[in-house]
Amino acid sequence: MNATLSELHSRKSVRAFTAETVSPDQKRALFEAALQAPTAGNMTLYTILDITDPALKTRLSETCDHQPFIATAPVVLVFCADYKRWYDVFCRYNDTVRKPSAGDLLLAQADTLIAAQNTVVAAESMGLGSCYIGDITENYELHKELLGLPDYVVPTAMLVIGHPTDQQKSRPKPPRFAVEDVVHTNAYDPTKNMAQMLKKRQELDESAFADWIVKFCKRKWNSDFSIEMSRSCKAIINDFCKKE
Amino acid sequence: MNATLSELHSRKSVRAFTAETVSPDQKRALFEAALQAPTAGNMTLYTILDITDPALKTRLSETCDHQPFIATAPVVLVFCADYKRWYDVFCRYNDTVRKPSAGDLLLAQADTLIAAQNTVVAAESMGLGSCYIGDITENYELHKELLGLPDYVVPTAMLVIGHPTDQQKSRPKPPRFAVEDVVHTNAYDPTKNMAQMLKKRQELDESAFADWIVKFCKRKWNSDFSIEMSRSCKAIINDFCKKE
Repeated sequence: MNATLSELHSRKSVRAFTAETVSPDQKRALFEAALQAPTAGNMTLYTILDITDPALKTRLSETCDHQPFIATAPVVLVFCADYKRWYDVFCRYNDTVRKPSAGDLLLAQADTLIAAQNTVVAAESMGLGSCYIGDITENYELHKELLGLPDYVVPTAMLVIGHPTDQQKSRPKPPRFAVEDVVHTNAYDPTKNMAQMLKKRQELDESAFADWIVKFCKRKWNSDFSIEMSRSCKAIINDFCKKE
Repeated sequence: MNATLSELHSRKSVRAFTAETVSPDQKRALFEAALQAPTAGNMTLYTILDITDPALKTRLSETCDHQPFIATAPVVLVFCADYKRWYDVFCRYNDTVRKPSAGDLLLAQADTLIAAQNTVVAAESMGLGSCYIGDITENYELHKELLGLPDYVVPTAMLVIGHPTDQQKSRPKPPRFAVEDVVHTNAYDPTKNMAQMLKKRQELDESAFADWIVKFCKRKWNSDFSIEMSRSCKAIINDFCKKE
């Protein structure tokens, strides 16, 4: 395994950081790596918000499902899908321009997430820990206001980055599914057995698994944050496509 | 700049491959790297379809905006956002399970794209070239049938991978925007001037730029593929959220 592959394998989410700051040069290297990511038609369909205001970090730690470690993370980045830049310039130089739609939103979000993951890989290579905060897609109306987002700019990914504590460095990475379970050949294979996959991954027998999956469903699917994410993402899509 | 950062910087899209095959061990390394990517709640909300059937590759080269190089690419992967696995197992073990929604779709698509980008980074580290095919989100109904996708499994990203030709290796990477243009501090900065950003990046004066942006808009926004992507992505969202 080459050094880059080793880094991809060893990278795990880090939610506790030392007091050491991330230097301006390090931040710059993260942003440069993000910008070098593949991007549809070289359009760079995103804007990265570098959240440096402590009060705003604290506010986001509350609005993103109440996760206090966001408030004290050395680097907090909000990756926004951004078609505003292009749509405005298209309108300025062309008489007929179709309205932004679901396809543009999903394409811009793809660009955004690809750039965010380059940032994560870059951070790992520099000895920095990172964690995605999916909850940035909740509370759309509030985040739009807090971050001053115009139309066609929507929160898509959030990263917190810093130097990992020793405890975080030694924390084991959660086991993943097997390649055979997730990679299918040519067509979708409906015979894969998810209960089996999970029992194997979590090392649980049937009785323990039944208990585990009920709790997991409650925590990740039937939960308040998940219901809010559903509502908010619908609002994001409707707002983006409102003129269509 | 460390070696990983250098790879992120040098990586560019490769659309022409030598006849050399990608070995089973190399493919396995790509899949292992994908699976090690960050994933919300360790849920691995995607399935990777490894397209090995030459007839299916040819069909996809037609349905993905007629790009013949897809048909002859050594590795063709379709990354599908997949909440079916989890939703089915939730329903089997729980009496009350909310219906899949826009939030679940966007979260699963984020997982999918993050894993796809790990694959791209892994490929680059192994000397393999890669290219995203955004057009896999077009023709949803047809792709659903061709790939045998059940409900709650939707095409999100496609990658072609292989050994780059010498011509592709020496092709210059298109210039990106400057960090200062794409990274804003705390709130969205509406004063950034996109026409200026583009003129600088493309090294164009006002007159040449006006011509460039009109052509670009025609090719990337008012174009047939883009109109189809708009239609198809709306169908993806509606299909995923139909029981909500």
